[in-house]
Amino acid sequence: MHYINKDFLLDGRTAKHLYHDYASMMPIIDYHCHLDPEEIYSNKRFTDLSEVWLSGDHYKWRLMRANGGCEKLITGEANGWDKFTAFAEVLPRAVGSPIYHWTHLELRRYFGCDEVLCPDTAEEIWEFCNQKLRNFDELSVHGILKRSHVEALVTTDDPADDLQWHIKIAGDFYISTKVLPGWRMGAVLNIESPDFSEYINKLGVAADTSIESYSDLKATLTERMKFFNYHGCLSGDHGIAKLVYAPASDGQLQKIFAKALGGDAVSEVEADQYRFGLLSYCAKEYARLGWVMQFRLGTLRNVNTAMLKKIGPDTGFDCSAFTGGMFGLAKFLDCLELEGLLPKTLLFSIDSMDNMALATLAACFTETDVRGKVQQGSAWWFNDTYSGMEQQIICFAEQGVLGNFIGMLTDSRSFLSYTRHEYFRRLLCNVIGNWVDTGRYPDNQKYLGSLIQDICYNNVKEYFGF
Amino acid sequence: MHYINKDFLLDGRTAKHLYHDYASMMPIIDYHCHLDPEEIYSNKRFTDLSEVWLSGDHYKWRLMRANGGCEKLITGEANGWDKFTAFAEVLPRAVGSPIYHWTHLELRRYFGCDEVLCPDTAEEIWEFCNQKLRNFDELSVHGILKRSHVEALVTTDDPADDLQWHIKIAGDFYISTKVLPGWRMGAVLNIESPDFSEYINKLGVAADTSIESYSDLKATLTERMKFFNYHGCLSGDHGIAKLVYAPASDGQLQKIFAKALGGDAVSEVEADQYRFGLLSYCAKEYARLGWVMQFRLGTLRNVNTAMLKKIGPDTGFDCSAFTGGMFGLAKFLDCLELEGLLPKTLLFSIDSMDNMALATLAACFTETDVRGKVQQGSAWWFNDTYSGMEQQIICFAEQGVLGNFIGMLTDSRSFLSYTRHEYFRRLLCNVIGNWVDTGRYPDNQKYLGSLIQDICYNNVKEYFGF
Amino acid sequence: MHYINKDFLLDGRTAKHLYHDYASMMPIIDYHCHLDPEEIYSNKRFTDLSEVWLSGDHYKWRLMRANGGCEKLITGEANGWDKFTAFAEVLPRAVGSPIYHWTHLELRRYFGCDEVLCPDTAEEIWEFCNQKLRNFDELSVHGILKRSHVEALVTTDDPADDLQWHIKIAGDFYISTKVLPGWRMGAVLNIESPDFSEYINKLGVAADTSIESYSDLKATLTERMKFFNYHGCLSGDHGIAKLVYAPASDGQLQKIFAKALGGDAVSEVEADQYRFGLLSYCAKEYARLGWVMQFRLGTLRNVNTAMLKKIGPDTGFDCSAFTGGMFGLAKFLDCLELEGLLPKTLLFSIDSMDNMALATLAACFTETDVRGKVQQGSAWWFNDTYSGMEQQIICFAEQGVLGNFIGMLTDSRSFLSYTRHEYFRRLLCNVIGNWVDTGRYPDNQKYLGSLIQDICYNNVKEYFGF
Repeated sequence: MHYINKDFLLDGRTAKHLYHDYASMMPIIDYHCHLDPEEIYSNKRFTDLSEVWLSGDHYKWRLMRANGGCEKLITGEANGWDKFTAFAEVLPRAVGSPIYHWTHLELRRYFGCDEVLCPDTAEEIWEFCNQKLRNFDELSVHGILKRSHVEALVTTDDPADDLQWHIKIAGDFYISTKVLPGWRMGAVLNIESPDFSEYINKLGVAADTSIESYSDLKATLTERMKFFNYHGCLSGDHGIAKLVYAPASDGQLQKIFAKALGGDAVSEVEADQYRFGLLSYCAKEYARLGWVMQFRLGTLRNVNTAMLKKIGPDTGFDCSAFTGGMFGLAKFLDCLELEGLLPKTLLFSIDSMDNMALATLAACFTETDVRGKVQQGSAWWFNDTYSGMEQQIICFAEQGVLGNFIGMLTDSRSFLSYTRHEYFRRLLCNVIGNWVDTGRYPDNQKYLGSLIQDICYNNVKEYFGF
Repeated sequence: MHYINKDFLLDGRTAKHLYHDYASMMPIIDYHCHLDPEEIYSNKRFTDLSEVWLSGDHYKWRLMRANGGCEKLITGEANGWDKFTAFAEVLPRAVGSPIYHWTHLELRRYFGCDEVLCPDTAEEIWEFCNQKLRNFDELSVHGILKRSHVEALVTTDDPADDLQWHIKIAGDFYISTKVLPGWRMGAVLNIESPDFSEYINKLGVAADTSIESYSDLKATLTERMKFFNYHGCLSGDHGIAKLVYAPASDGQLQKIFAKALGGDAVSEVEADQYRFGLLSYCAKEYARLGWVMQFRLGTLRNVNTAMLKKIGPDTGFDCSAFTGGMFGLAKFLDCLELEGLLPKTLLFSIDSMDNMALATLAACFTETDVRGKVQQGSAWWFNDTYSGMEQQIICFAEQGVLGNFIGMLTDSRSFLSYTRHEYFRRLLCNVIGNWVDTGRYPDNQKYLGSLIQDICYNNVKEYFGF
Repeated sequence: MHYINKDFLLDGRTAKHLYHDYASMMPIIDYHCHLDPEEIYSNKRFTDLSEVWLSGDHYKWRLMRANGGCEKLITGEANGWDKFTAFAEVLPRAVGSPIYHWTHLELRRYFGCDEVLCPDTAEEIWEFCNQKLRNFDELSVHGILKRSHVEALVTTDDPADDLQWHIKIAGDFYISTKVLPGWRMGAVLNIESPDFSEYINKLGVAADTSIESYSDLKATLTERMKFFNYHGCLSGDHGIAKLVYAPASDGQLQKIFAKALGGDAVSEVEADQYRFGLLSYCAKEYARLGWVMQFRLGTLRNVNTAMLKKIGPDTGFDCSAFTGGMFGLAKFLDCLELEGLLPKTLLFSIDSMDNMALATLAACFTETDVRGKVQQGSAWWFNDTYSGMEQQIICFAEQGVLGNFIGMLTDSRSFLSYTRHEYFRRLLCNVIGNWVDTGRYPDNQKYLGSLIQDICYNNVKEYFGF
């Protein structure tokens, strides 16, 4: 069979029909990504495939390192062509890797290139694609977003960010994609970090105030949320290994914060209390603002200290780690619900091992007239593979109402990765199409077509309020 | 393909043959359910589909809530028709949900209705089925049990229960199904509950005694077990989040019990000691009585306190939770085996994540001439889905002797849910049939037919001694 | 379909092609097994099927026990024929068990016997195979190894072992298989054991020294490693339930060791510190020697104390147990990497639940010009089943570079189990062939053929340096 033909991942009659006639034409709303708003505003052009593919993609870096690639050719000073050939050498060995599929989907969809990347074809593809990158407006950032039918996207922004690029984009008539800021608390939660007090200072400066106490911190965060909200923010996102149930009084939280602000180390228990307390405070603010709360669980970060020291965080040295179970998360949601201030919530895990716990927990918190108020997020990061996505879809379907699933996000740093939505949609149509073709769901176009389009687009639009 | 035709879930030649020629005609022994013995004795009639389907089924409630249904239409005061249409609205969105399959299997098998339930067909189905419910004796409780070939069923009964309905049923010549009580220790294990001493008092009254000490408790439980045993009870069942290894002396247990009886709070450690001690005591009694011990692990109950306060427990607000591993359970079984008093034991988990641990642990405890003495229970509760059941069967087959599996139970509160046995049998035949059709097991009718019939019926009959 | 025909487990066109034209002819390097080097040196002959199949195989014992077999017929004094018929009775009930497949692969490949083993055929097979065992040189140990194309194998040897049989084998011109010792620290890590000081004494004697302190222990182990290395050892292996991060000073470790050597009990924390410290020491030695480090995680051993007392360890009473997550392991690797002394490392788990954590952790530690320096090991022990292997391969492919996978090991005590390499290869070809046949990987023979041969043979040869 031809590799990545028009029926890629679509095994049966119904899958093909659902994808081609319903899924493929829906616009994309990418509700969580790591794109750089400055590059969007400035309509960045890429000089070569290395820049657009390899310069910021730690997925590909991991692949190259696992193959024994030297760091010079990965994040180092080697030139673009050398890096590209290094990548081309690994790729054929990476059979079964999602990167193998993403790479070729991107070649086909953005460059119209039908070749299979390997050492033999590397030069031809390099020349072919670079020529297009340099000369075709469709391969500028604006061109890519337009061509991918990206109606809206949400970046990942620190509370201290001034959102200048989002503001500029919003004022630019020529940018048709809605580019919204996404509130992401990372540094403010990381009270154990040696950089914590420095960060708090920076946050105060951003808010034109001075944060001297936990009360100040809360007030400042509320101000920043209002600022973000004014500029279109619709959600608060958190990437944490696990959520520990650690309630503490306001007095305790004031002391813990003062300690950390003063540069003293806090204990593990204190850090958990601080996080549980601060997250509870912010969650209630999200509820008041109508934001969606997102939790991305199960990651152990920076496990290779030697490389962290050498090239910094977010470079491909994180791994999946067991969360210790969902007791803390369950208590957290329960407390918010008791106060009537539980926002819409998305629960992601990096490991399909957590699917059942997240899906069944989600179904315990609901609200009249809100479809899927708390729901399991799509398969994410390391779990964002063929088998990971398939398992997540099946678990969601078996434990909840699949028709309410808000679907895919890229979580990507690359403008070319919008084909991951295509990948997800093909897989979704294949799973459901297979159920129909084997008599496990009636062949009812009325429901199937709208269900597919809901999961691909309508649900996420309504859920967040884009 | 026609939805739910006669070959539903049966993909290959051998699967069809095994199901139609071996599995389908076997009677049902439902060794664990939550049916109401009074409704059996009184041969309850149902006035409409809402009563028979929605009035007690927290699976369907979860589905409706996850879709944003309002509680009035779920457990509230809305009328039957409004509740039914609310359910009909959710259903087509629930593609991939076991409830979707169960619903249509029940329509076909009990009502002879071939329609697919959705808003468009709701009224027609409502009228058609209600008319049958009111007029056809086959849809009385006795009729349903007979038609489903339910040879025996085991209800779930508190040690304080007087078993009056079981006694009446046993004396009723017209009830052909054996209806046996099932010993289920819940309240007596829940020493942290504020209602604990009240419950102990109630238990004493039921046993015509007064429970003043841990020794009294043990003696009373032994008396109650004898009473249950006299009325046909064959097993002791326990639904607990996890079993912690916490051995304690009798003196310690006396003190802990006295503390709780006096209304004082016990610590987490004390509660674990109490449970480990009391379960050990009871397990040995089960062994002496020849009962089967059942553990249902991994559930976090009542995670939504707001709804617990509003509508009480067992209403659909439980979720899967990690057990912390099987060390405690392993030690528990080991201690019993050392004393030569390990009963037959079934190990269930709510999450397929635990399959391997349970299956491999089970295989460590065996007894001459007892097939599958300790065995992994069927996929249960949230795990009782197509993929959950398939994974459980494969794990059982790979880690044990599948031919000794005692098979399916409903765990249901609904008389119509006997089609879940059909669902399980089809899936079982499909898994094994597929192995045969792909050359992974010889096409040997002699072994395959009896193996299927063993798993569907013979094994459970022999294992419990029905 | 004929059971176990030439296309067993090969569902599609490409799978058949890959297996028959690339995988099947590759030699075997079995980098971890439990074969007895004395039996290899002496070219043992087997008198009957019971001896070769049942006398040492706790997989089969578990199966027989789970079926209610009496211990006399399993490890007891019953004669070979009675044991064999007992096994033949269980087998047809064990549909879906890997033992069912292994048994018939062994009958076909070593005995040329096409029968299906069941009670009806037991006698015929018994006579047929025993006659061959007694008369055919191909069924001597040397014959089996030659016929299986075993180029090299690594046994499992205690540091106190004198390696006399390995030395003799190395000097024997007629043994074409390389038989290398494998360093396996079990007793020296088990500081809680009552036999610990006795073992340390034995280790001292083996090294012709006296171990009075932790310093002595380290020096002695280094000496023993040099001795093993001289005799061809290429790796250090460790089977532990979990690795706890418990750094301690050398002074603390000296005290803990002295305590245990003096016969005093060490605490759980002290035992973890000792293990973390000693493993760190040895890992660095492995790195200096160029050895591969192996961790086999997640086993709870000897859970049935009654049977342990009766027939000893390694008799089939172990089970899978949750490791508690990979934090300790991650810290362990990180510390070694910081010192620049992380050896090549293989991470195995007994439960597919750990796949994601191990695969993503492995990808965090890499080295220039080393393909797959740290990698997830093949599905192992209880996980070494069809579904376990399939999941491991898919996880490896999705999280790493499958082309660098070093592939299968038997971990077996039986000379006939080399067909497990065939089983693995067929399954591997089936997974990859299926990707090709469904358009998920290009139909490129150049890459596919060499990829398959790399995973089957070339990678392991290069990785260890055989």
